[in-house]
Amino acid sequence: MTPSRPDTDQAPAPMNGAESVVRSLHAAGVDVCFANPGTSEMQFVDALDRTGLMRCVLGLFEGVATGAADGYARMASRPAVTLLHLAPGLANAGANMHNARKAKAPMVNIVGDHAIRHRGYDAPLSADVEGAAAPFSDWVRTATSAGSFATDAMEALGAAMSRPNRVATLIAPADIGWDSGGRMAPPPPPPAFAPMEAEALERAAAMLGPDCVMLVGGSVLETPEAVARLQGIAAQTGATLLAPTSNRRFERGAGRAPINRVPYPITMALETLAPFRRAVLIETVPPVAFFAYPGKPSLLLPEGCETLTLAGRDGDGPAAAAALAERLDAAPLVAASERPAPPPAGPITAPALAAAVAHVLPEGAIVVDESISGGRNLWGSTQGAAPHSWISLAGGAIGDGIPLALGAAIACPDRPVLALQADGSAMYTIQGLWSQAREGCNVTTVILANRTYEILKNELFAVGANPGRSALDMLDLDRPHLDFVSLARGMGVPGRRVEDVAELCHVVQAALAEPGPYLVEAVM
Amino acid sequence: MTPSRPDTDQAPAPMNGAESVVRSLHAAGVDVCFANPGTSEMQFVDALDRTGLMRCVLGLFEGVATGAADGYARMASRPAVTLLHLAPGLANAGANMHNARKAKAPMVNIVGDHAIRHRGYDAPLSADVEGAAAPFSDWVRTATSAGSFATDAMEALGAAMSRPNRVATLIAPADIGWDSGGRMAPPPPPPAFAPMEAEALERAAAMLGPDCVMLVGGSVLETPEAVARLQGIAAQTGATLLAPTSNRRFERGAGRAPINRVPYPITMALETLAPFRRAVLIETVPPVAFFAYPGKPSLLLPEGCETLTLAGRDGDGPAAAAALAERLDAAPLVAASERPAPPPAGPITAPALAAAVAHVLPEGAIVVDESISGGRNLWGSTQGAAPHSWISLAGGAIGDGIPLALGAAIACPDRPVLALQADGSAMYTIQGLWSQAREGCNVTTVILANRTYEILKNELFAVGANPGRSALDMLDLDRPHLDFVSLARGMGVPGRRVEDVAELCHVVQAALAEPGPYLVEAVM
Repeated sequence: MTPSRPDTDQAPAPMNGAESVVRSLHAAGVDVCFANPGTSEMQFVDALDRTGLMRCVLGLFEGVATGAADGYARMASRPAVTLLHLAPGLANAGANMHNARKAKAPMVNIVGDHAIRHRGYDAPLSADVEGAAAPFSDWVRTATSAGSFATDAMEALGAAMSRPNRVATLIAPADIGWDSGGRMAPPPPPPAFAPMEAEALERAAAMLGPDCVMLVGGSVLETPEAVARLQGIAAQTGATLLAPTSNRRFERGAGRAPINRVPYPITMALETLAPFRRAVLIETVPPVAFFAYPGKPSLLLPEGCETLTLAGRDGDGPAAAAALAERLDAAPLVAASERPAPPPAGPITAPALAAAVAHVLPEGAIVVDESISGGRNLWGSTQGAAPHSWISLAGGAIGDGIPLALGAAIACPDRPVLALQADGSAMYTIQGLWSQAREGCNVTTVILANRTYEILKNELFAVGANPGRSALDMLDLDRPHLDFVSLARGMGVPGRRVEDVAELCHVVQAALAEPGPYLVEAVM
Repeated sequence: MTPSRPDTDQAPAPMNGAESVVRSLHAAGVDVCFANPGTSEMQFVDALDRTGLMRCVLGLFEGVATGAADGYARMASRPAVTLLHLAPGLANAGANMHNARKAKAPMVNIVGDHAIRHRGYDAPLSADVEGAAAPFSDWVRTATSAGSFATDAMEALGAAMSRPNRVATLIAPADIGWDSGGRMAPPPPPPAFAPMEAEALERAAAMLGPDCVMLVGGSVLETPEAVARLQGIAAQTGATLLAPTSNRRFERGAGRAPINRVPYPITMALETLAPFRRAVLIETVPPVAFFAYPGKPSLLLPEGCETLTLAGRDGDGPAAAAALAERLDAAPLVAASERPAPPPAGPITAPALAAAVAHVLPEGAIVVDESISGGRNLWGSTQGAAPHSWISLAGGAIGDGIPLALGAAIACPDRPVLALQADGSAMYTIQGLWSQAREGCNVTTVILANRTYEILKNELFAVGANPGRSALDMLDLDRPHLDFVSLARGMGVPGRRVEDVAELCHVVQAALAEPGPYLVEAVM
């Protein structure tokens, strides 16, 4: 984000409300709009068109727009703006707003509403827009006049860029966008970090030891130097370094210090954390189970575990890591790792898939991970792969992967994107493939086609059920098979089905090297 | 709906909360479940499986489940139950809950939430479920114990079946479903009609004349005898009979009295209603414009129009029509109409499409209309087609057509369903085709492929904009073309692309006569 002075000189006068928002956002560094507009947003379509200031990316479904904005923000570290339509459109956008919110990715949504005078009537599309926004937004406001509309937008941007990043939703009655009297507003001030207390540094230093876990999230994981410093501290003190299960982004691979995550399955998570009596947290909170399970706790750290937050989510984690390393005089540590060997030919099992991905990943690639159960071996296998970025589903609302890949590719047009996508989850926002084709994104999507909601079967067995045909029918994706190659072709994305892992390597390597999107259905 | 006594004798003891809900709903006449479950609904998957009491239909996206429940309810005049997952899943379901709510279709949603003890933590999938439900529900409750869970479900069902029908959402913390202590609850009492006042009947009779419009909606449109009575009244008094723009269902076609609707375009709507100084309303409210337009009113009846509600939405419209006909001694009137001739070969224009549909429609067919701009001639052309049911998008949230067709086919397995579907709108819930294939539904979907959000272009021009390339890009669906035949094939639905209207007739006729789904991409 490179805020510049509002270009008031260049702005034509008079300006309507929509144009003042578009110009002010652009002056503050927002130059991409993921849109699924309707009638009540035509003033923005018009303003975006006339000003030519933003790259406009159309999604055929609102969840594509917000998921893409999430992927864009995670890679660009600044928000795009989305353009959405009334309460039902906002609802369609909600699941991926949720994922962005849990990822602490910055997002600014502009949602058109009926004109103010029309809101009192029960028109067909009337519903409570603020109410629909609230569960999936950290900041919600309804604009009230053309003159203050850009100021509202800048406050939304400020909320999105605050520490930690947030999802901000600005609701725009149609008449405010059309009304003249729009005025430029200055960009929000740069976000401030919450300061670290010197006392906390001393306490953290004293807590570190073999019975201590350092849990680190947020921007630490995006900063290889910070992870290397923390691994150095861990090696020196005997403490263990872990990341939360769900995160915004990792910078990782060969030459960068690896880090493990708290496992998703509750039993493994509890086992992993059981040894610890102390926990030092940086840019994260005490870890919580995804779901509640009979006889198992919701909080994953052992009862009575002494917990210290060295830097909160609103703090500067890399600075905290540097201060702690200096305080302990610990040198950064990057374990040596070798590029993985290619897997031998054979069926595409989870381990074979993981080896294939690790082998083919080019330097600078972006991995989008919504692989769910079929990707359980990916994390370990790719620690030594070529350096890459890694973004994954953060809020548990499946259907983020295809849009995340779209947004990441828009943010980083020169980097190949490899999207590892579970089949069941892919169907929630499959429409995103069309936008990838339209924008010419170099995204290679690998569908992990196990033809089942495998993870739900595990959950069903985990609670002791003995499922019959009817239950399994609700968790199986066969009958009929989903033919993802046909689906992709229908949206302008070429593709191929593969059943052998050696062929998978070959096809994915070729697709990553070519421009434009490609889809590989990997039958597992 | 045929409520029966709860089968307490057959229910095994002890029963968990989920089973008590499934058994009580079934005893009250609910025997179809449209599901997109997740971990927090596994207790329902288990209970549905063990009891075998309901037909379970899986959707690959939540909007498919709620749209199908809408279509089912509109045709069956009783609700199915949906099974949804947490706040993001509920958000995905929201747009078609909105459409059902505006259609006044009965719907009962059961939405799993985290276990009560887990809700205090900020788990990845945590969000405000009640908040997400409220904008798209008429009734919302969170269950609090296994013992009262079935009672909550019966109150939800009662709310859904009240007059007018409503969307009821019951939120179910996971532990309540698993806990033993579930108890059967008796079905809700049958819904009561609001009584009609004798004075209103006299006033209505006195108001009727050439300057009076009778606006009638709800169950009147589902009752051909009622429409015939009202047309008889119109003929006798010189009044005009009209239906609202958006409705739950029509029973129409040859041998049934035709009725026109208030047009969607604001200018046409105002012109249509301009002549009237009096309005008598039955099961509807004064009509409102879809959107607000500069210089045009929100309310469509002329200012100062005297308005009388003979029967409200909570009243018995057909009884009101009968009472009024008796009071005026007016005989029912059904205008004679001929079955339309087949269109000559040629390109698939809007009028040619309309003629084709009117010609091929078999008796007893169900038409699902989400044709938007490409279907503008359909209504008139099909007045004389073979008798059929007609359901259409009621809340303006596009993406209801494919699921509506699925639900209608489940409700009426012996009747062919013809879904007339705009291409842009189709992409919001395209996943519904897979459920049509899985369930073997006889749905013939005709995609009206004009490859644009045509209606939005109209809206943009209507507000005086002069759109450039960037604006048109956000309203065009080419680049790349959507290949709906490939999309359908990917979900197990065979299909074909046609460009000539004679071929369209031939293909649609054959598809309607065959079991199972089929998709025709009609290039317009």
